[in-house]
Amino acid sequence: MIVNGKHYHTIWVDSEDNSSVKVIDQGRLPFEFRIEELKCCEDVFQAIHRMTVRGAPLIGVTGVYGIYLSLLNIAMSDWKEELLKCADYLKSARPTAVNLAKLIDEIMDRISEFTIKDEAIKFALAEANRIKQREIDWSEAIGNYGYKLIETISQNKKGDTVNILTHCNAGWLACIDWGTATAPIYKAFRHGILVHVWVDETRPRNQGARLTAWELSQEGIPHTIIADNTGGHLMQHGFVDLCLVGSDRSTATGDVANKIGTYLKALSAADNNIPFYVALPSSSIDFSMTDGLREIPIENRGEEEVRWIEGINTKGIIESVKIIPDESPVANWAFDVTLAKYITGLITERGICKADRESIFTLFPEKKIKLSL
Amino acid sequence: MIVNGKHYHTIWVDSEDNSSVKVIDQGRLPFEFRIEELKCCEDVFQAIHRMTVRGAPLIGVTGVYGIYLSLLNIAMSDWKEELLKCADYLKSARPTAVNLAKLIDEIMDRISEFTIKDEAIKFALAEANRIKQREIDWSEAIGNYGYKLIETISQNKKGDTVNILTHCNAGWLACIDWGTATAPIYKAFRHGILVHVWVDETRPRNQGARLTAWELSQEGIPHTIIADNTGGHLMQHGFVDLCLVGSDRSTATGDVANKIGTYLKALSAADNNIPFYVALPSSSIDFSMTDGLREIPIENRGEEEVRWIEGINTKGIIESVKIIPDESPVANWAFDVTLAKYITGLITERGICKADRESIFTLFPEKKIKLSL
Repeated sequence: MIVNGKHYHTIWVDSEDNSSVKVIDQGRLPFEFRIEELKCCEDVFQAIHRMTVRGAPLIGVTGVYGIYLSLLNIAMSDWKEELLKCADYLKSARPTAVNLAKLIDEIMDRISEFTIKDEAIKFALAEANRIKQREIDWSEAIGNYGYKLIETISQNKKGDTVNILTHCNAGWLACIDWGTATAPIYKAFRHGILVHVWVDETRPRNQGARLTAWELSQEGIPHTIIADNTGGHLMQHGFVDLCLVGSDRSTATGDVANKIGTYLKALSAADNNIPFYVALPSSSIDFSMTDGLREIPIENRGEEEVRWIEGINTKGIIESVKIIPDESPVANWAFDVTLAKYITGLITERGICKADRESIFTLFPEKKIKLSL
Repeated sequence: MIVNGKHYHTIWVDSEDNSSVKVIDQGRLPFEFRIEELKCCEDVFQAIHRMTVRGAPLIGVTGVYGIYLSLLNIAMSDWKEELLKCADYLKSARPTAVNLAKLIDEIMDRISEFTIKDEAIKFALAEANRIKQREIDWSEAIGNYGYKLIETISQNKKGDTVNILTHCNAGWLACIDWGTATAPIYKAFRHGILVHVWVDETRPRNQGARLTAWELSQEGIPHTIIADNTGGHLMQHGFVDLCLVGSDRSTATGDVANKIGTYLKALSAADNNIPFYVALPSSSIDFSMTDGLREIPIENRGEEEVRWIEGINTKGIIESVKIIPDESPVANWAFDVTLAKYITGLITERGICKADRESIFTLFPEKKIKLSL
């Protein structure tokens, strides 16, 4: 998508000899737009670990490029053994990122078939590029399907602005391009539909205020940042036409784990008869799970995310301040689960379906066959 | 309540000659505990306007003391005319604080009957002290009634810790002593019941993290600060036994306006069969209103409250940082309305009742008579 008028992906091979990969440093956004070059396994580990890159799809793709860069830098002898160590190291950069481990395991499986290192290198680069392109295609397909929803609402409102509420950043910054929850919005905007986005600040890490708002600004899409507490009031008063969020992990029955606070917005949408859609690539559905509340583990993260906050001080310098009394403990669950009954539908790369087992398996029949084997 | 081991009210007459009033400077909490002396109308105006004092009950009492201090400082001639100007000025310090205007009008009505200034002064001081004591009595009564609820839950849990979720600061800092939502918690704790409080951070002004957490710390009550997004997850997993919040304004039918985000917690409590109680003095019920969503005006406050945040920097200095991109607009509704159907009950100074017209008028029959006249 667009940054300062120029088209970017979140990750790309930029050097003439394919010896490095570039990423947008998301840890500095929106205060500073900086590009970081990754040249080796350690660079990639740090980029994932320090959250220079974040978002399940982007982390996964970065990990796969990490395997490629590792291979490039490994001495000829024992390269397979060395690469296995790199793979384990890269997977440990974000232990809860299921996608990262899965994609690394997949490419490692394929690489194990090679005996000549140079061929493995060639394959790894092609495979990383292929997985990257697949993510883009999935996002764009989600955008095209979801756009139809927004178009219909716009028609029902006789062309009036469609107000969409989103939570956290399920934007292109979390993916490669387009995003998941934002993809239908970008598509609608490019089709000339009037849209306005209510951007949940998304405490404690403020991904909405920092990343989603920045993305939308760069694309010129009208939006307003609100405290996470505000969405219910907006929905009660008819200021929201559609809720659109992403998903970190979903069950085969349509329960959705997403950034903490998503569940509260889903309740409010249900209470006010507002459609609540979740945009997600099918890769984030765990087809073996049937009970989101019991089966999806919820990460309890460090208290410093709630206790400290980063911003720009009056001198224009990035600074962190402590916003909570030292004596008070903090709890910081990172995700919650929204039960399928509160979800109007799932927008996937194969189309839109209801959040139930039957509809999901109708779109992804091969998963059912696999499970029953 | 207790601060640094000593008992305080939020406002008190402290000088030997009754020539000034002292208040806790709540704008500096929890980072600094400072007491401010108010000597004249202007001091009181600034204390209310700059939110040195906040919370409807405390603002009202401070305003009444402001009338007393104004009288003290007015020249003998034309004192009634001068006092009227002071009254108007004080009321303008927080135009949306209904309680402030109401209490000032009441005392001004009574003062208009006096012809001798010294007698008016004596009366004003006695009246301010009386209204202050009435607020304390109301809070304590709410505490005693609400405590019974907590005691019952504790008994049902066989003495296990009762987990209470609260939103914003409906604590003693907003009142004179005890608070409203916190009063039952303080009473339960002093009766030896094991309690733990989930304190919603309460964006954007962070009254939960700054004030409620500090209050509870000072009293030694176990508590944990959470992002506002977290309550739903906690309720889904059985970590909350009771929700207890305050109210800025309620209708005769039991709809409750309170700090933005209250509604989302009420929905979650209903979804998980958790009792949701509102603690409020009857003075905050507008007995002429019957439809909270349509009739209670919701203040849309300045965007700087969302855009900037105050904390302690790494050098230990209080500093504000900007946490939102300059290009992105902000909306900042301060309250929302929770419909009566989501409220288990109201805890008032006369007892606990259901959030419906009949139950409310059973507790406050004189209001019904007054309305039907």
